[in-house]
Amino acid sequence: MITRTDVERAATRITGHVRTTPVARVEPGIAAPAGELWLKLEFLQHSGSFKPRGMFNRILAARETGELPAEGVIAASGGNAAVAVAYAAKTLRLPAEVYVPTTAPAVKIAKLRQLGATVVQHGSEYAEAYEAATKRAAETGALFCHAYDQPEICAGQGTLALELLDQIGELDTVLVAVGGGGLMAGVAAALDGITRIVSVEPETAPALHAALAAGRPVDVEVSGIAADSLGARRVGTIAYDVAVRTGVQSLLVDDEQIVHARRLLWDRYRVAVEHGTATAAAALTSGAYRPASGERVAILLCGANTDPADLVG
Amino acid sequence: MITRTDVERAATRITGHVRTTPVARVEPGIAAPAGELWLKLEFLQHSGSFKPRGMFNRILAARETGELPAEGVIAASGGNAAVAVAYAAKTLRLPAEVYVPTTAPAVKIAKLRQLGATVVQHGSEYAEAYEAATKRAAETGALFCHAYDQPEICAGQGTLALELLDQIGELDTVLVAVGGGGLMAGVAAALDGITRIVSVEPETAPALHAALAAGRPVDVEVSGIAADSLGARRVGTIAYDVAVRTGVQSLLVDDEQIVHARRLLWDRYRVAVEHGTATAAAALTSGAYRPASGERVAILLCGANTDPADLVG
Repeated sequence: MITRTDVERAATRITGHVRTTPVARVEPGIAAPAGELWLKLEFLQHSGSFKPRGMFNRILAARETGELPAEGVIAASGGNAAVAVAYAAKTLRLPAEVYVPTTAPAVKIAKLRQLGATVVQHGSEYAEAYEAATKRAAETGALFCHAYDQPEICAGQGTLALELLDQIGELDTVLVAVGGGGLMAGVAAALDGITRIVSVEPETAPALHAALAAGRPVDVEVSGIAADSLGARRVGTIAYDVAVRTGVQSLLVDDEQIVHARRLLWDRYRVAVEHGTATAAAALTSGAYRPASGERVAILLCGANTDPADLVG
Repeated sequence: MITRTDVERAATRITGHVRTTPVARVEPGIAAPAGELWLKLEFLQHSGSFKPRGMFNRILAARETGELPAEGVIAASGGNAAVAVAYAAKTLRLPAEVYVPTTAPAVKIAKLRQLGATVVQHGSEYAEAYEAATKRAAETGALFCHAYDQPEICAGQGTLALELLDQIGELDTVLVAVGGGGLMAGVAAALDGITRIVSVEPETAPALHAALAAGRPVDVEVSGIAADSLGARRVGTIAYDVAVRTGVQSLLVDDEQIVHARRLLWDRYRVAVEHGTATAAAALTSGAYRPASGERVAILLCGANTDPADLVG
């Protein structure tokens, strides 16, 4: 379980290591009849997603308590968490070992190596890479950095919400895309009692939605256009606990709605985000979430590690 | 000639019609040893560039003095000014007629029609479309909106600088890309006596640079990767006057430096801007402009009407 205090501590800890990302107020057209619509431009963060917030917090918290080994850090991910841990390790001059499934694209692997990480390709799925990485961590003693389900990771991601609060004051509603739920957990903990949190998932990767229905985290099948960033098979235990405790709402959108939202973000605002990020916007643009009159709404645009080739025109 | 007062009047006039675009403070790595580096994210503006600021000011100023005809507005452009005038006219429920060269891409023409403008394809070059549009304006009485060389247009563009001043206080230096010079003119007028203005042009489209060398606006040959947005054959007379009066510095960069800067803006910040916009950043990333130690610098990222297909990876 994490609370706002954990997020506040994280914010102090990671200051100077992450960018304060700007917000843009835009006309509420896509969220009518909302009174205000804000975009949190977190895709401007180092490494192209919010993930360094959690990674820096995890590593620096370990350093504070003397638990950061000379062996450095280890993680399993083929996506944004991998690039973020490699970036954080490089900045802090630590060795990083990253386990990726053999299906990870060559461009991602090249990026990790460019950041100085040792890349180990293992297994055809994230689950296998994860298994191997945790074993390896036990052998080497390196600090294991989870992609979403560790308290310091979730608290670090939540610093985005404190920043938002500082920038535009108390909002009614924040829309956040959910994969493993690390960002949602941090944001919901930080804004508990202040702001309604609406989690948005693809219908084809509904880990939180299924967990809330089942009363506990359960495995789901994952597929679809946003699976590269939101394709966790099971929502994190921390994320599940925070979602239940703080009353997070859960919505689903389909792939067509995600593609449409991503296209619309480019057409209207010239921001090129990944499909996982567009998922949060899709709740508004599809009408799955309908703000009340005068409601103050923010969409977290949390990542842009995307191929923008289809956004021409 | 325009002054800060003109820009302040423009700001009052266009409030509510344009977006306040955010700024992002980023580590000064690409501008070492500068003390601060800021990006003005103007590509988030309506229609994907700063151009609506000037168009709204031109049209609303005419309305104030009773000089806005029922025939609406007319312009010549195949680029950002065309989309901006069509957008402004649609918002203000006015007819718009836009002359574009026959070489304008089909996707631009479709966009203009989608915004409700009447599109007339005329001549193989901007100069011919411009000629025809001014003739047509004389016949119909429609308000001619120049792409860069009218006082209200320049003053409107300058509102971007007042916004910047309001957001981050007095900077040492602002880097601005120059085509016809409308944005530079407004910005330099607004920040006269406060901030150093550095204009950046492609070597292959050096309208301001050549004018400053010649002591008056002169025709130049234009070509190269940023010619679609910066390819004015002659800098505006207003821009030239303001540049001389306020002591604007003029720098040139080559196409390779522009391409590199655009790529770097995507790699580091996940912003996808057009080559004309990357031209301003290229002054820093190429070393053509070297800030002093502790210098506070802003780059105006003024447009993103670009095909982002080559930014993958």
